[in-house]
Amino acid sequence: MIEILDRVEDARDLRGLTYDQLSTLATEIRHFLVETVDCIGGGGHLASNLGVVELSIALHRLFDTPKDKVIWDVSHQVYVHKILTGRKDRMTTIRQFGGLSGFADRKESPHDAFGAGHAGTSISAAVGMAVARDLLNEDFYSIAVIGDGAMTAGMALEAMNHAGHLNLKKLIVVLNDNAMSISPNVGALSRNVNKLRVDPLYRNAKRDLGEFVEHFPLGRQVWQGAKRVKTSMRDLLVPARFWEQFGFEYYGPIDGHDIHELEATFASIKRVPGKPVLLHILTEKGHGVPEAAADPIKSHSGTYWLKKPAAADAPAPRPTYSQVFAQATQELIEADPKVVAITAAMLEGTGLAPVHAKHPGRVFDVGIAEQHAVTFAAGLATEGIKPICAIYSTFLQRGFDSVVHDVVVQDLPVVFAMDRAGFVGDDGKTHQGFIDVSYLRCLPNMVVAAPKDETELRDLLYTGVNHDGPFAVRFPRGTGPGAPVDLPMKRIEVGRAEVLREGEDIALVGFGVSVQECLRAANTLEEAGIDAAVINARFAKPLDEETLLHWARETRGIVTVEENVRAGGFGDAVLELLADHGLAGKSLLNLAMPDEIVDHGPQATFRQIHHLDGPGIAAMAAAALAEADTATGAGSLPAMSPIAAS
Amino acid sequence: MIEILDRVEDARDLRGLTYDQLSTLATEIRHFLVETVDCIGGGGHLASNLGVVELSIALHRLFDTPKDKVIWDVSHQVYVHKILTGRKDRMTTIRQFGGLSGFADRKESPHDAFGAGHAGTSISAAVGMAVARDLLNEDFYSIAVIGDGAMTAGMALEAMNHAGHLNLKKLIVVLNDNAMSISPNVGALSRNVNKLRVDPLYRNAKRDLGEFVEHFPLGRQVWQGAKRVKTSMRDLLVPARFWEQFGFEYYGPIDGHDIHELEATFASIKRVPGKPVLLHILTEKGHGVPEAAADPIKSHSGTYWLKKPAAADAPAPRPTYSQVFAQATQELIEADPKVVAITAAMLEGTGLAPVHAKHPGRVFDVGIAEQHAVTFAAGLATEGIKPICAIYSTFLQRGFDSVVHDVVVQDLPVVFAMDRAGFVGDDGKTHQGFIDVSYLRCLPNMVVAAPKDETELRDLLYTGVNHDGPFAVRFPRGTGPGAPVDLPMKRIEVGRAEVLREGEDIALVGFGVSVQECLRAANTLEEAGIDAAVINARFAKPLDEETLLHWARETRGIVTVEENVRAGGFGDAVLELLADHGLAGKSLLNLAMPDEIVDHGPQATFRQIHHLDGPGIAAMAAAALAEADTATGAGSLPAMSPIAAS
Repeated sequence: MIEILDRVEDARDLRGLTYDQLSTLATEIRHFLVETVDCIGGGGHLASNLGVVELSIALHRLFDTPKDKVIWDVSHQVYVHKILTGRKDRMTTIRQFGGLSGFADRKESPHDAFGAGHAGTSISAAVGMAVARDLLNEDFYSIAVIGDGAMTAGMALEAMNHAGHLNLKKLIVVLNDNAMSISPNVGALSRNVNKLRVDPLYRNAKRDLGEFVEHFPLGRQVWQGAKRVKTSMRDLLVPARFWEQFGFEYYGPIDGHDIHELEATFASIKRVPGKPVLLHILTEKGHGVPEAAADPIKSHSGTYWLKKPAAADAPAPRPTYSQVFAQATQELIEADPKVVAITAAMLEGTGLAPVHAKHPGRVFDVGIAEQHAVTFAAGLATEGIKPICAIYSTFLQRGFDSVVHDVVVQDLPVVFAMDRAGFVGDDGKTHQGFIDVSYLRCLPNMVVAAPKDETELRDLLYTGVNHDGPFAVRFPRGTGPGAPVDLPMKRIEVGRAEVLREGEDIALVGFGVSVQECLRAANTLEEAGIDAAVINARFAKPLDEETLLHWARETRGIVTVEENVRAGGFGDAVLELLADHGLAGKSLLNLAMPDEIVDHGPQATFRQIHHLDGPGIAAMAAAALAEADTATGAGSLPAMSPIAAS
Repeated sequence: MIEILDRVEDARDLRGLTYDQLSTLATEIRHFLVETVDCIGGGGHLASNLGVVELSIALHRLFDTPKDKVIWDVSHQVYVHKILTGRKDRMTTIRQFGGLSGFADRKESPHDAFGAGHAGTSISAAVGMAVARDLLNEDFYSIAVIGDGAMTAGMALEAMNHAGHLNLKKLIVVLNDNAMSISPNVGALSRNVNKLRVDPLYRNAKRDLGEFVEHFPLGRQVWQGAKRVKTSMRDLLVPARFWEQFGFEYYGPIDGHDIHELEATFASIKRVPGKPVLLHILTEKGHGVPEAAADPIKSHSGTYWLKKPAAADAPAPRPTYSQVFAQATQELIEADPKVVAITAAMLEGTGLAPVHAKHPGRVFDVGIAEQHAVTFAAGLATEGIKPICAIYSTFLQRGFDSVVHDVVVQDLPVVFAMDRAGFVGDDGKTHQGFIDVSYLRCLPNMVVAAPKDETELRDLLYTGVNHDGPFAVRFPRGTGPGAPVDLPMKRIEVGRAEVLREGEDIALVGFGVSVQECLRAANTLEEAGIDAAVINARFAKPLDEETLLHWARETRGIVTVEENVRAGGFGDAVLELLADHGLAGKSLLNLAMPDEIVDHGPQATFRQIHHLDGPGIAAMAAAALAEADTATGAGSLPAMSPIAAS
């Protein structure tokens, strides 16, 4: 069945193929994509990649990477690009530990001009490359491929504005309009595009234009003709005027699954003298694979439609933290008319989709717009509404100034629910929730909390919604230990830790997901004859000073454990406290995420590597105690090999 | 001369005035503004406030604050609003320690619906308030007043998109188009508006519309007529279409200095049923005061035109850090064809205006678009250009995710030059550079540096431009100690501190601006018989571990001093280091900015309050030493009263 794809090692092999062969190739690539995603167990972004098969082929036939730069926005749709740039044989390693990244990655290939993972950055990067090119008197095309959802990110519009101002030549923005980013698109801009798509006048106009191009595919003369048509259609093609306001020459919309039409248009664009170009293409997520196209939201992340349905007598799966969060939010919304939830285009990822379906007026999806999401929440809070901003730890970085300038400086009661805090797993380096404790703990008035389990997540949300000031709660990707999620939510005293286990030798103080690992470590240590207390910190700010000082005094020292980097994290908070009370010597160890960029792979793998799982914590704690004893000349504890940590 | 203004205590007093009286009032307010700004020594934003006198009057006559919400974007233009809402008598305290804020401030007055200081937040806040209103079944207008420069901020466009999607009633965005934000406007959007302003067809169309409204100022019938005119003018009024794409009803442009026209239009808008409205008004910065209007950039911040020219024989004033930075940047640009500088609408504030004038192709003003600025720099860096991103410490918060996701994750060589780090002075709480060390030190690969003086700023910039990775250098507002700025720049070893003074008793380790204060403190301590070493850390990341550990061992302890909050700051870095080497007991004190929102007032005042000036550091260090001696039972040092610190 695979005939053409086997012969394609890299993009140069595409150039000799006929359109019939290209059509076959597109089908073969789709099969290959489905098999790949199946092979890796269903992760990855299948529907998005199925939607850009023809675009990827056309770009690689008409442009010459790595000389020409193609910057894929978000870059979850680069699988086809990877297949066509020498990485076909490694595709089954994608998103696996040590394997290919699920995103573009400059370290992986020179064909990956710019890495990404967050939406809306591609045009800025493309503008930077085009300006660099002109400064250095080089000659290449700089091409950003951006979805209609990502285009509503503020920074994408900032970049459009700047590009138009600079009037850059050989800068092409391909607006890949699939009328749906991860959640169905939000916003007035996309509504206009949607209206257009079903407008029969527009349909006809598009066909006319297509026929024009088809008749004389590559001639300059024709292009002039096509331009005249476009001009006369102005009032039908409303979006053209919008993008032209930014100083771009607008082309399209064209069928993004028609390689011939794509190539003819790119060829024409290449003949246009210096002016930035926006090419509007229409594609379908999941194109060519009916199951994926039918439900592209669910198949956005891999295997929904590939998986076998669960057997009827299988035990109910444990809910993810996202689901626990969403369920709690729904209960809060139903119990208090002032509670609302906000997401930035992540209705599915945050778990809020069913809550939105049930309470559409109380759950706001603002689009890919984290800055607006946070300041919108601040505005709501001024009037007595209790907003819960559900933004992944990594994406809240985008809204940081809004957190500082609008929420914190004004001390407004906004709850930040940060999913994917700590090791993120297969999404890798652009998605790690590795610094939120650091960038929030430095803010006055801010509460920074993390639950040890599902029950506590519910209680902390309830506490946050009833707290009079900014309140952040972070929780990890995946499932928790399985604590009850059906108990009435109760308020937790802000700044109050919880002693889970008493012990004489050492105190393990965990924050969030690390608490369970501390409990495991305490069991291991017990076997080695070390009596460890375990404290669930619950708050990195404010700290429970009384409890922490007590256990610093009652044991030989404290080990802090967290899934955030050390600099500015929870461990630093405890270290400050101990230093202020002349107990700094009781700080044995601050275990944290490493001061390095962490790649993709299972969370458990990275917890093991960085001594953040039970065995690692136990080994490191025992070693630290032994070292402290050596330093103070105290009697040695039962030996425990540090090898256990590796 | 002041006849009407004396009778206006608050907005209600405006309602009985005739248009002739209002015109007199506007003139009186302008005089009052000039006198106020003169009285406070020239700080503040005079030109912007002169530009919104009529708008402020009209808003307060047609709307009823605090029930109706008026949100002023950036809010440096709220002086007239403050005068009209009961704060006239305190205007001479504006921007003074303990006095009125130079910005809107929710703590100052219920009429200040939303505080600000950074641009582009007002629409998000207004949308939040409008949604809250509808959820709570309340009834009021939510009005954002935003400049044309701020409107190009990505988050403003995100908010427009969301507002259009929600189709909110009683939401008005007043686009205050003075064709110039702080720097002449950047971007294709503003270029289009500028073109329009001089288009004679548009001028006529505007007059026609004006006449219509004038004839029948308040009738619904007329509004219908005016709407017809507007519709027929569509193709002339290009911006209308742009904003209509966002789902807004567009009105204008109208003359923002014509109270009558403003009121008639607001009255008409109030009759429009539920749909968000964008009202486009044209104003002139500095209107009514010829000197201010002639050079609004210079008079944006106060007194340029009020100040007497310096006497010919006066000594040349010491250059500000901004000027030193700009001069160094110019030299770097002239010495290396790959160096460029980037500013986000702060050509004047960063000092880069003359560099831009001399090298327009090498200094990029991207508009109010910090996110784009940083990712644009990342794109440049991928191609071998060496970009210097000149963004104030407080504004880089807006570009934080771009720093993390685009620069740091890809380890790209971008230099961040962060002016206004530490206490900012009169601008107050929205502008404090209080957390940049915390939000940057947590990032892998990032260098975080700060110079002790002007020479070192030059050297650190040179070092940064030649460093192969992200490099941040922070420096304070104002002038330095007066070190030479004409020496050839030299490279400083990354992570190498400098010992400025040896001493046996204690080591004062300063970062950036605090180094000079540590030297002063050492002199004071010497008088008290305490022999203090002084170390210029230069780098918060990476630390000079060797030097710091050496002085920790050679003295009785270390005091760190910085102008950043403690959480995650430089002191935490040193504390981590000491703890890792069993020297945590040698950490005597981490002096830092307080964990609270710091208001406006002189930098020196806050340095004194928070023990960050020479006397404060000396007193706190002596007290810490004494306490340490008590704790360890060592002989006491010569007494030094902690009272000296207060």
